[in-house]
Amino acid sequence: MASGPLRIGVCGNGTVGGGVIALLQDQASLYRSRCGRSLELTMVGARRDRDDCLVPPSVAVERDLSLVASARDLDVVVECIGGTELAAELVRAALSSGKSVVTANKALIAEQGNELYKLAEDNGVSLLCEAAVAGGVPIIKALREGMAANCVSSVTGIINGTGNFILSDMAAAGRDFAEVLAEAQALGYAEADPTFDVEGIDAAHKLAILASIAFAMPLKFEEVYCEGISQVTPEDLTFAEELGYCIKHLGIAKQREQGVELRVHPTLLPKEEQLASVDGVLNAVRLEGHAAGATVYSGAGAGRLPTAAAVLADLIDLARSGSEVISGLGTAVSTLQDRAVLPMDDVRSAWYLRLNMLDQPGVMSQVASCLGAEGVSIEALIQRPPVHGQQSVSVVVVTNEAREQELGRALDAINALEGIDSQPYRIRVEG
Amino acid sequence: MASGPLRIGVCGNGTVGGGVIALLQDQASLYRSRCGRSLELTMVGARRDRDDCLVPPSVAVERDLSLVASARDLDVVVECIGGTELAAELVRAALSSGKSVVTANKALIAEQGNELYKLAEDNGVSLLCEAAVAGGVPIIKALREGMAANCVSSVTGIINGTGNFILSDMAAAGRDFAEVLAEAQALGYAEADPTFDVEGIDAAHKLAILASIAFAMPLKFEEVYCEGISQVTPEDLTFAEELGYCIKHLGIAKQREQGVELRVHPTLLPKEEQLASVDGVLNAVRLEGHAAGATVYSGAGAGRLPTAAAVLADLIDLARSGSEVISGLGTAVSTLQDRAVLPMDDVRSAWYLRLNMLDQPGVMSQVASCLGAEGVSIEALIQRPPVHGQQSVSVVVVTNEAREQELGRALDAINALEGIDSQPYRIRVEG
Repeated sequence: MASGPLRIGVCGNGTVGGGVIALLQDQASLYRSRCGRSLELTMVGARRDRDDCLVPPSVAVERDLSLVASARDLDVVVECIGGTELAAELVRAALSSGKSVVTANKALIAEQGNELYKLAEDNGVSLLCEAAVAGGVPIIKALREGMAANCVSSVTGIINGTGNFILSDMAAAGRDFAEVLAEAQALGYAEADPTFDVEGIDAAHKLAILASIAFAMPLKFEEVYCEGISQVTPEDLTFAEELGYCIKHLGIAKQREQGVELRVHPTLLPKEEQLASVDGVLNAVRLEGHAAGATVYSGAGAGRLPTAAAVLADLIDLARSGSEVISGLGTAVSTLQDRAVLPMDDVRSAWYLRLNMLDQPGVMSQVASCLGAEGVSIEALIQRPPVHGQQSVSVVVVTNEAREQELGRALDAINALEGIDSQPYRIRVEG
Repeated sequence: MASGPLRIGVCGNGTVGGGVIALLQDQASLYRSRCGRSLELTMVGARRDRDDCLVPPSVAVERDLSLVASARDLDVVVECIGGTELAAELVRAALSSGKSVVTANKALIAEQGNELYKLAEDNGVSLLCEAAVAGGVPIIKALREGMAANCVSSVTGIINGTGNFILSDMAAAGRDFAEVLAEAQALGYAEADPTFDVEGIDAAHKLAILASIAFAMPLKFEEVYCEGISQVTPEDLTFAEELGYCIKHLGIAKQREQGVELRVHPTLLPKEEQLASVDGVLNAVRLEGHAAGATVYSGAGAGRLPTAAAVLADLIDLARSGSEVISGLGTAVSTLQDRAVLPMDDVRSAWYLRLNMLDQPGVMSQVASCLGAEGVSIEALIQRPPVHGQQSVSVVVVTNEAREQELGRALDAINALEGIDSQPYRIRVEG
């Protein structure tokens, strides 16, 4: 067992980096006893000091991050600078100089992980990113190690806290998307530019990482189908509730015979599903394994200390593993198997359709025949009485399972009907 | 990195052992790729063959288990024989001869773990028991590694599937304990002698293991307070529901200033708590950490394959960790700190009280004054109109937080009242 300290350089002293620096100092004796050696904060890389991140005088502070990457007396570099350009440079330099890297940067791993994991392996070091997915929930460890005995058939997760907060609040308060988004921004749950969160890009980054570990395949972020929540209305949430569902923004990765499904989108989920009760900024992931069955993991998906705690868990793993290299994706890069991503046209699911139709006889029967012509059958239907003074009514249809291509054709035909008032909106249904 | 195979001897070919033997054969190539080396079933120790456990002819089968423990060409012994006497002998012999041990045996670890972990450490080998708690849910790994950056303040779990099945079914169907127990026995969810499950001993074993890892303290099974579910009535479940609670059989370990609480008992839990929605034979555990906050883990708590998958996860950890020893309790035995277990008299919680009182004026005011005399105040109260022809009525009281000692004195005083018809029943309230 290695008994010298694990010498750590932390780059970035913002929210997460500052949290890591604080934990390393505050819990030094706890970590020493859990690892049988010290986790030593040796160096901090930060372009400027920050009042909310105190670094003890004994620790070297470098303004030039490349000096951290190349420092001789470090075992690990923690990348907490965010972004993908400078971060990629830093991580490449650190790995190339024989240091392990721990990062919370999901965009970096999802977009450049294939190259970076290979580089780590070539240099005989570890690249770990527990904090990149679901914050304080040790979901990467659960997949890579806890479920390692399983052929994993699916990963389903609420992996963006901002989106989940917005949908939960819309459902609870009956308010619309824009209003709740503004509140989330005021509370600090959503960024000033919320695109990454509400359009699902952040969730797609995380799903790409989970799928790679679950199915031992290269990272395929570019092939994740990605749909956000900005079109979900309070009316959809009410209709869903009435039908026994909630609406969650899910990342879904499924192993199918013809390929792997990788998709992020709003989803109707039966209320009795465990993920359905995960509200607010919480994250939760459900793993389905051939031997363990379904296991569910939930907790804080973001925040300074939960994220820092996940970074620290990686550091503790490195300290405990001594000279053994940890394969961050759960298997050597050379043994990852390329798997085709199933085109969305071929994905099958049940559907929730919201139609705005003129309140006149015959339209519903035309809609049903458009669906029927593509082999899509109706499982449930809600039609509300027309609101006084309005010419159109909302009709909601839940279909049985159908391929996206057929459903799309049926929707095109429905959209062309004279009695249809505006573009139909559809949400996939799971479970 | 070790590249030779991990040579495994499995003792016991019953439900779990058979599952381990099957997984090792069926998923050999998956495990080889995940570990970078083979998991090789080298030897099986079984006193007789079983039709449902096929061992390939290349694998040596020993009738005398001590020959497995002492075999020269094994790295790990998997103990799946159950019980605590022969199993302890086997595990001691294997550890003493320098082999790591993986076991699913919670009774063995809870009752003799202090000695066995010491023995493992003295021999420079690992002793792992992921399968001992919550079956297929990797909760021990989550505590030992995923939450390793946290000071854990509490562990709360539904860790006995039989008990949870019985309470869930009683609540859903309004049937009484004996009836549902008989059904659980017919379904194979409960043993012919259900004492271990329904009296909470099994949950106490598991709680002792979780608490030891969470608080880095020696195993203290003998000091776990243990109360079963046989006295819970359908009426209690209905009252709880009406008050906004469900009743779960929980294992609770809490770090307090004056000591550690270790207790297993039926508990009223607010319906909005995540554990409240975990029904049937599922298990779930909630960990509260100072940095990550609350994280919840759930899944199948028992069964051949979920349990075998947890054993395999330990084997995969051993294969990946090469020459590094894994401290099964998350820290070296020598650094475990003895912590006093708080006497139950000093434990504080809110209380649910069910009283059977004569339907006559003044009794309720006497009850309130017995409670008031001990400083216990009433938060909620339900009194049903008397059933025609019956002289007594059920009254339910929920109190604010009170020490057990005070509550006990108040109950003694209440029990002595003339208007009280039978011994009051009390359930602790959490959350």
